[in-house]
Amino acid sequence: MLSKNVGLREDHLAVIILDQSALPNTTNYLELETAEQMYEAIQTLKIRGAPAIGICAGYCLYVLAVHSARGSFNYIRFYKELQQYADYLAAARPTAVNLSWALNRMLRQVKQNPDLSLPNLLHLLYDEALQIHKEDIAMCQAISQYGLQLLHDGMGILTHCNAGPLATSRYGTALGPLLLAKERGMELRVFADETRPLLQGARLTTYELQQAGIDVTLICDNMAAQVMKNGWVDACFVGCDRVAMNGDTANKIGTSGIAILAKYYNIPFYVLGPSSTIDYACNSGEEIVIELRDPQEIREKFYKQPMAPTDVKCYNPAFDVTNHELITAIITEKGICRPPFCQSLATLFE
Amino acid sequence: MLSKNVGLREDHLAVIILDQSALPNTTNYLELETAEQMYEAIQTLKIRGAPAIGICAGYCLYVLAVHSARGSFNYIRFYKELQQYADYLAAARPTAVNLSWALNRMLRQVKQNPDLSLPNLLHLLYDEALQIHKEDIAMCQAISQYGLQLLHDGMGILTHCNAGPLATSRYGTALGPLLLAKERGMELRVFADETRPLLQGARLTTYELQQAGIDVTLICDNMAAQVMKNGWVDACFVGCDRVAMNGDTANKIGTSGIAILAKYYNIPFYVLGPSSTIDYACNSGEEIVIELRDPQEIREKFYKQPMAPTDVKCYNPAFDVTNHELITAIITEKGICRPPFCQSLATLFE
Repeated sequence: MLSKNVGLREDHLAVIILDQSALPNTTNYLELETAEQMYEAIQTLKIRGAPAIGICAGYCLYVLAVHSARGSFNYIRFYKELQQYADYLAAARPTAVNLSWALNRMLRQVKQNPDLSLPNLLHLLYDEALQIHKEDIAMCQAISQYGLQLLHDGMGILTHCNAGPLATSRYGTALGPLLLAKERGMELRVFADETRPLLQGARLTTYELQQAGIDVTLICDNMAAQVMKNGWVDACFVGCDRVAMNGDTANKIGTSGIAILAKYYNIPFYVLGPSSTIDYACNSGEEIVIELRDPQEIREKFYKQPMAPTDVKCYNPAFDVTNHELITAIITEKGICRPPFCQSLATLFE
Repeated sequence: MLSKNVGLREDHLAVIILDQSALPNTTNYLELETAEQMYEAIQTLKIRGAPAIGICAGYCLYVLAVHSARGSFNYIRFYKELQQYADYLAAARPTAVNLSWALNRMLRQVKQNPDLSLPNLLHLLYDEALQIHKEDIAMCQAISQYGLQLLHDGMGILTHCNAGPLATSRYGTALGPLLLAKERGMELRVFADETRPLLQGARLTTYELQQAGIDVTLICDNMAAQVMKNGWVDACFVGCDRVAMNGDTANKIGTSGIAILAKYYNIPFYVLGPSSTIDYACNSGEEIVIELRDPQEIREKFYKQPMAPTDVKCYNPAFDVTNHELITAIITEKGICRPPFCQSLATLFE
């Protein structure tokens, strides 16, 4: 497998994924053979992170094509069947853009080649799935290389939520430079915010960094200020969900608070992500609508019993927008953008 | 009962407490008749909050005196017995200053009056226990009255952890002005940080404010910046564990982060507490040692299963120190102190 979280079984009759919903308690690999198993795995977040979902979807459609090709071959029926599978899988997480994007890339290979034989079509699909995977690895590697330039031996790094290999392919975005630094023999000291309410930092970031042999310390989100005050943080590294053209950055809830604390303590604050998250159509963070989620995530989820009155009002925004004036640099696979972001980000689209 | 959380049973043979460890799921009153039951209730945080523990301890020693007085009366034996009970109860939470302080106040009544009859001694003890309770109510009321001057109808307030009636007697410190405002017909909108890792905000603050009919919204600690950015917070009200003479304030972990966010968003930040928390011997926050607690509180406690690798390092400070430059005013039962705190706090000791 090209990466630890998703790949093909040797016989090409199953997609293998690392079950992220069981982490960090259990490291369990699942073999997805049927469309129903694939749908369920994506829907229940057994595989998560936009790039990882896209990669998985590519492999899924290839495996389904291999299964589907076992009877007598008829191009029209074959294409129709794959189209139905793609529609079905896309519905597993309708808002995940990478899911339908990857499925469409796969379908296009079949659509554009009606004259090819079955073995050749399967070969094309296999290549395309692999290509989606490899492109993501290359992108993460490029981001990590640029991010590495901001690190040196002995630094303390604070990170929020999870933007590592599990969510992508290899290295990840915000965690990428840290993993690459470790490979190069650098010793870092990383502080991971647990990231309430869904605890991606506690469950996934600490797990990934520990696996890589990096010195990681878990803290509650409200301890970040104290860790900074102690002088333990030399830079913050976070991912991003959407970046406006002025540099305003939407990311997991809590990110903007960390940026304000970093500013107060004069600590550089870096945002890392693929250039595809920079939204050319979005001028500033004010245009970004914040998704509100289920209060149950704050009051009850994960707990043995409810930890607040079960009817108490909750405000549960999924992400927040960090003002560009708080951001030291935005790192994509194309390079490091510094303020003024209006100019530096625009050059990425030239 | 003078307050909802602790008092005497009508027959004076039991202390009644509201079991805070069962909140907010169950509202359960416990009747403590034996020293063993009292010890267990204090040790397992069924009653918590320094002032509340002190009040409870006063009643406990009185009830034990009533039980102890049932045989034939001998002053020396009676005093010795109470002394043993006091030593035993004080060990339930050795670091809780109010516990031994209240027990000593009770013992002193017996020690200073060797010539009194049993009924008169019991009467003295009853009066002293009631006095401890009433003094706390008066102190909370005075803090609340001063704090009320900072409020007006329609304000949005952010609070952290729990400094309400459950931790004290009535009103509380940080929550006191909010409860008093409600009694005066003011409508406030309160945001309560859940306060990881022990969730006192989620479990206790939302419960207390809901009971009082105050509009309260629970948020995760990392959402405070977003709530401020939305323009929903006009002031922050927090309690305090220890205040240095320059105004630096130790309080529940996360408080200093909130103060930094409030500064960034130009929101006043108020600290409320009895003047006894101002430490004349402490010049600045740098002298305050921060207690580190069990990593298990972050990784496992409250959860159905561990939510982080069970061996991952955690940094779990119980409180942090907010720099005086971030504090708008410190409110005690003696009045409102404003910067420069070196001067305004010193006048409290004149």
